[in-house]
Amino acid sequence: MTKILGIDPGTKRVGYGLIEVNKKGQFQALDFGCLETKLKDEGEILEEIFQKISQLLKKHRPDLMALEKLFFFKNHKTAFQVSQARGVIILAGQNQKIPIFQPTPLEIKVCLTGYGRAEKQQVALMVKNALKLEKIPKLDDTTDALACAIAGHYLRKLKN
Amino acid sequence: MTKILGIDPGTKRVGYGLIEVNKKGQFQALDFGCLETKLKDEGEILEEIFQKISQLLKKHRPDLMALEKLFFFKNHKTAFQVSQARGVIILAGQNQKIPIFQPTPLEIKVCLTGYGRAEKQQVALMVKNALKLEKIPKLDDTTDALACAIAGHYLRKLKN
Repeated sequence: MTKILGIDPGTKRVGYGLIEVNKKGQFQALDFGCLETKLKDEGEILEEIFQKISQLLKKHRPDLMALEKLFFFKNHKTAFQVSQARGVIILAGQNQKIPIFQPTPLEIKVCLTGYGRAEKQQVALMVKNALKLEKIPKLDDTTDALACAIAGHYLRKLKN
Repeated sequence: MTKILGIDPGTKRVGYGLIEVNKKGQFQALDFGCLETKLKDEGEILEEIFQKISQLLKKHRPDLMALEKLFFFKNHKTAFQVSQARGVIILAGQNQKIPIFQPTPLEIKVCLTGYGRAEKQQVALMVKNALKLEKIPKLDDTTDALACAIAGHYLRKLKN
């Protein structure tokens, strides 16, 4: 059994998805959702992200954290803010000695759909099927985090 | 007396400069230098930056942290890495309830030389004079951190 925590980092929302993979390679979703903050101060937001991710890691002790790499961005300001959030998420993983794997959005799409230009909806359907969910999660951030976890499982095996 | 810790964040080097300002507005440099890491793993580097900045804050208890904002960058990868480092530095400040002020490189130059396109050397000379240093610090990162601290003092007064 392997537990992987996928994370889709953002400035105000951080999606997370914990999956378990059994020896047959079958997936199961254990916990998923989206951390949303109402705070406005940059320092307070980063502190909240750090604490919540640390709590998730402590509670579930995953074998791997799959953290989506930043690749596309609308503007520099957003990209810098997301990178700052990634910094404290990596620190949370490092503090608890959880190995971190960082797939790119392209790698995640190819891994789930076989196609690098797949639409969000296609990726979401593959997530739903692979994890046998009743429906697609409400927020994209959550779905992306689950996709990242699944991709983390396959890609880590390939790269090891 | 006001104590300000200036920080110039980077991927492998983080310059720091602690200054004290007395009631007459005279500056004194209390401690300055550059944190350099030999680590290669991203998580380990961020952990080291977080720990060393936390130690500096705990030791000196500054009234303000002046953290240089990211503005110019050679490539996205570097900018993202510096932003990640900024994330853990902001977290260290937030953890210890130190107010954070983030001047831009332009604001720092204007503040120290009156000219937004000043050369590095001009800024360094102003730092040396304002702090009555015997010589300009060896590394740019250190000088930039001291410049950031001085600018933090003036700009915070203006903006408050």
